[in-house]
Amino acid sequence: MAEFSDLDGFRAVLAALPQIDSTARDGAAERNGQLTKPPGALGRLEELAQWYAGWRGNPQPRVEAAQVIVFAGNHGVAAQGVSAFPPEVTEQMVMNFQHGGAAINQLARAAGAQLDVHALELDRPTNDFTQGPAMSETDVVSALAVGWDAVRAESDLLVVGEMGIGNTTPAAALAAALLGGEAAEWTGRGTGVDDAGLVNKTRVVNEGLALHKGQGDGVEMLRRLGGRELAAMAGAIARARSLRIPVILDGFICSAAAACLADSSQGALDHCVAGHQSAEGAHARLLGALGKEPLLSLGLRLGEASGAALAIHIVKAALECHSGMATFAEAGVTDA
Amino acid sequence: MAEFSDLDGFRAVLAALPQIDSTARDGAAERNGQLTKPPGALGRLEELAQWYAGWRGNPQPRVEAAQVIVFAGNHGVAAQGVSAFPPEVTEQMVMNFQHGGAAINQLARAAGAQLDVHALELDRPTNDFTQGPAMSETDVVSALAVGWDAVRAESDLLVVGEMGIGNTTPAAALAAALLGGEAAEWTGRGTGVDDAGLVNKTRVVNEGLALHKGQGDGVEMLRRLGGRELAAMAGAIARARSLRIPVILDGFICSAAAACLADSSQGALDHCVAGHQSAEGAHARLLGALGKEPLLSLGLRLGEASGAALAIHIVKAALECHSGMATFAEAGVTDA
Repeated sequence: MAEFSDLDGFRAVLAALPQIDSTARDGAAERNGQLTKPPGALGRLEELAQWYAGWRGNPQPRVEAAQVIVFAGNHGVAAQGVSAFPPEVTEQMVMNFQHGGAAINQLARAAGAQLDVHALELDRPTNDFTQGPAMSETDVVSALAVGWDAVRAESDLLVVGEMGIGNTTPAAALAAALLGGEAAEWTGRGTGVDDAGLVNKTRVVNEGLALHKGQGDGVEMLRRLGGRELAAMAGAIARARSLRIPVILDGFICSAAAACLADSSQGALDHCVAGHQSAEGAHARLLGALGKEPLLSLGLRLGEASGAALAIHIVKAALECHSGMATFAEAGVTDA
Repeated sequence: MAEFSDLDGFRAVLAALPQIDSTARDGAAERNGQLTKPPGALGRLEELAQWYAGWRGNPQPRVEAAQVIVFAGNHGVAAQGVSAFPPEVTEQMVMNFQHGGAAINQLARAAGAQLDVHALELDRPTNDFTQGPAMSETDVVSALAVGWDAVRAESDLLVVGEMGIGNTTPAAALAAALLGGEAAEWTGRGTGVDDAGLVNKTRVVNEGLALHKGQGDGVEMLRRLGGRELAAMAGAIARARSLRIPVILDGFICSAAAACLADSSQGALDHCVAGHQSAEGAHARLLGALGKEPLLSLGLRLGEASGAALAIHIVKAALECHSGMATFAEAGVTDA
């Protein structure tokens, strides 16, 4: 059960999250220097292995229990025509997840990951944030708790993602509210709106900003401009930290949810890497603001945790090399 | 057994290689348009699936028998001090491959791929190409044949890579000979030579160019400036094409070997994708010249097929999505 019952309680949880185990990280760095390869020749795989070892508190770990969680929610702003797809597609896609037919089903299976899907009150969309806060405090805390409780204690790597027709609009509003800049700089085509749709979507984001920007910290913005699946992702990311489970962030919407945590508590995303850079226009900028360099850049813009699920392979492979390779001494190979 | 006994025979094989099956590719494109995702939302995964389907002649294929082959060779130019490691490391690393301790052992296993290692006459280094051709025609044809014969007919995806102390030097010489530009633009630090080492290495490449540049086509340059493991990679890439097995290219040395094929026969690399962009300085330029956009860019510079082996996951995942996802009609999801 979640260890908070209101937003201040959640803020207190964030402030008390554990830090990296520097002894384990340093032990991994020492091992890395002895492996049968030129120094640095595995590039980012070496960094990933040491980062992961530090969070797991084990200088020679492997990834054996990756978990992917997809949260689904519906949005009041969808009624303003911000998506190329109608709102009923959120629930239809949840059924598709449950029947194994979506991209994330294939990607999670290929990565050897457990896939869990949580639909959050799809028949009760959030309020339209151009009219008032998207959620009451009770609603956002409830969604954070769904995310918190969805993380399995036995997981050793977490990916979170989302499904929610219209949800690039709250993501753009959150990014603009937290990081500054014009609405147009953060608003993209999502699942594929046309030029007129993009103008309309930018208007909606602007109206949200006019009403809510500057009215509180990241988690308050999550309440005002976010959505249930965004709050659930934030709750899951925080819970993973409390359990020392490293996290791979997915695309634009996941990153916007994560940005709310970073705004409320500095270093809250130290246990996270960016799985990929989405083709959604503003994602590169959002990752830059979070200080995260993406592992992959393959033009994905699907959500569903798809890009991050693909990146599970990279993190797993990094640990297979780190923990499975022979040292120069073990292999009888002459060092440089 | 290889279908050629001299370089002209190999050129004839290259000229007669099969082309993509456009019916299968178009069938895959049609299926792609019906899958439960916004059009284009899986980015490069969609392109990869259609490319792979075309080469396999099957609109709904999967990758079930990936093969990784590492070829090892020794180089006369190593005696000129072009590497940070001594030549005996080539054989020591082959032993490491055979005992399962190298990076590629971990990466091939993680990718579910068969790993085969072929050491090519390690006790008989090629000639120093600053003194004359690296190989006789008999030698280069023999190495091409080792590569040709190393490809398993039952494989459905091939990765080739190499181990050979000193072999970024022939790779740089080949790239410069085939693509133009100064030796210094193609010569990098390899396993980690210092500034003085880089000056020396560039001198060696320059001397090779002075002696051999312009003296023949790509496969002739492979004989004059290449090495046994480079020729074997080229032979394996050609054999894969003859068997309609798509290929993932590895780093700078693999790409230089591939460039020899492209120089001798236009379109010879149409069945290849670039697995990754190496941190070896000139690799990005070499891939650009080959018209290949890398799937990954993670700062690897190890060779051993390591980057391409990591990219197997991406190609496999692309096909899992393509062939495993439900269509809009199957899933009852409303299309845009």
